[in-house]
Amino acid sequence: MPAADAGAIAVAAARQAQLTKPAGSLGRLEEIALFMAGWSGREIPALDHLQGIVFAGNHGVAAKGVSAYPPEVTVQMVGNFHQGGAAINALARTCGAHLTIVPIDLHRPTQDISGAPAMSEEECLTALNAGAGAVDPRADLLFVGEMGIGNTTPAAALCAQAFGGGGADWAGRGTGLDAPGVARKVAVVDEALALHGADIRDPFDALRRLGGREIAAMAGAIVASRGMRIPVLLDGFIACASIAPIAAAEPDITAHCMAAHCSAEGGHARLLAHLGLAPLLHLAMRLGEGSGAAVAAQLVRSALAAHAEMATFAQAEVAGAL
Amino acid sequence: MPAADAGAIAVAAARQAQLTKPAGSLGRLEEIALFMAGWSGREIPALDHLQGIVFAGNHGVAAKGVSAYPPEVTVQMVGNFHQGGAAINALARTCGAHLTIVPIDLHRPTQDISGAPAMSEEECLTALNAGAGAVDPRADLLFVGEMGIGNTTPAAALCAQAFGGGGADWAGRGTGLDAPGVARKVAVVDEALALHGADIRDPFDALRRLGGREIAAMAGAIVASRGMRIPVLLDGFIACASIAPIAAAEPDITAHCMAAHCSAEGGHARLLAHLGLAPLLHLAMRLGEGSGAAVAAQLVRSALAAHAEMATFAQAEVAGAL
Repeated sequence: MPAADAGAIAVAAARQAQLTKPAGSLGRLEEIALFMAGWSGREIPALDHLQGIVFAGNHGVAAKGVSAYPPEVTVQMVGNFHQGGAAINALARTCGAHLTIVPIDLHRPTQDISGAPAMSEEECLTALNAGAGAVDPRADLLFVGEMGIGNTTPAAALCAQAFGGGGADWAGRGTGLDAPGVARKVAVVDEALALHGADIRDPFDALRRLGGREIAAMAGAIVASRGMRIPVLLDGFIACASIAPIAAAEPDITAHCMAAHCSAEGGHARLLAHLGLAPLLHLAMRLGEGSGAAVAAQLVRSALAAHAEMATFAQAEVAGAL
Repeated sequence: MPAADAGAIAVAAARQAQLTKPAGSLGRLEEIALFMAGWSGREIPALDHLQGIVFAGNHGVAAKGVSAYPPEVTVQMVGNFHQGGAAINALARTCGAHLTIVPIDLHRPTQDISGAPAMSEEECLTALNAGAGAVDPRADLLFVGEMGIGNTTPAAALCAQAFGGGGADWAGRGTGLDAPGVARKVAVVDEALALHGADIRDPFDALRRLGGREIAAMAGAIVASRGMRIPVLLDGFIACASIAPIAAAEPDITAHCMAAHCSAEGGHARLLAHLGLAPLLHLAMRLGEGSGAAVAAQLVRSALAAHAEMATFAQAEVAGAL
């Protein structure tokens, strides 16, 4: 797997030290600039091609009453994405992202994970490839998000399988589930873990048995981006859960990722800690669709603008520290 | 003092409830949209005129070794602002702000607050009026920031005077002071409090004796904005400290303000708690110049774009919650 370009990071850090500000005073904006330098291989990284991808899938487990919304909302929201009326459309326009919508077999929900593997091997491979294939090789930053009624349940199961714990540790309120709904979700996650746990020998098994099509697709996009040295802004709980099976086996897989935000979904903060990622934003968002990542992409624009456009102490004839 | 328009907030909240997302799922972006609705008096607030003002002043107390930088940097940085090479120039361009630079009598530093009042009554009034007069009445959002070598020292003194405690509670590292420098700063703040404390009977006395020109100007701009119902994004420790004397006497004065961020300066989190403001960003920034507010202004753009542009459940033919 490619690594960040240490030479580019070093020259970018040297540039940061000469810009007209106290050293380190732009805080995490400076971290972002160096991160982008490392993955672009350039002292002064650009953000000319920001791509956002929203993957959508349907989940058999939705029939178990684990979501506050009916499953037909997935296809309805994909229609809304195409018409430009969803939150992610407004937020992508604001941050200057090109948005790619990838619905995957919405007419064929996955199997209910509490009774069967979510997908066959071929179905899971198809979803992974759909994710990998959706990444624009010209992108200089990618964010991934999702839509799929019921998908916090497979996400919770993937987290538990990857990092330990049970349904009670990882199942949250999702889109706004009431207490009995959360209790059903906890039970469903525990049933799925009991049914599949012994058969999961690698991350592919985990994604296939416990995941979903849009979840596998996000994993495929994240891994493919790494191969192309494209940095990734991870969105919320489900986007982060998609990479959990691989990260549990190979923690370095998220080296090219930043966590856009910490969502209001209960398990997200714990998941970010397991992934070793410090979120950029804490705005109590819990929408999915890549919405948190689109907001965080603006911070990347700020970080790169300061890095590229600021004068040095010498250029501006400003005295340095005493 | 004008209050937010409760009717506009109510219609904006009703609109939020119809947009194609789970209720509350945009978290603080929804709060921002309602806040802007309240101060604009409109169901769908615009952000057509975003103004940022950077006030600059010089401080006699800088001679006491309370900054990591020499005092001539204030005028040099104002030159950098005018040439477009500072962080705030890049960040203002990124968030689409019109930037106003207001240096105030840089050739006449204030008196050293540990030995005399910073300003005469007339000087303080001039600075307050310079702040009020710099606000563009057409602005639909204002952010205020500052430049002034040594100005975390008067800011710390103002916080201590307003909310209690001494130099050790409020004096921090500023632009990157070492431990002996922080110790000098603590002592200077305590000397200033001992010298002036008994003579301070109102917020004007506090600003005049312990403050500085750019600090009084920020207070003037914030109060004037309230009169014009222009909402304000407060920047870091010094911008927040500027309103501390008035807020201690009249907490409602910050009702039209949002805290852009919590900076890395030690006293800022405590100051925000006293002001009752929850910061939007936690990026460990500590630059001043309005830099944190310029970054946070992007969140306002995102919040207003989602509020204005999203389809309703009915428009998009999406089913609501079960």
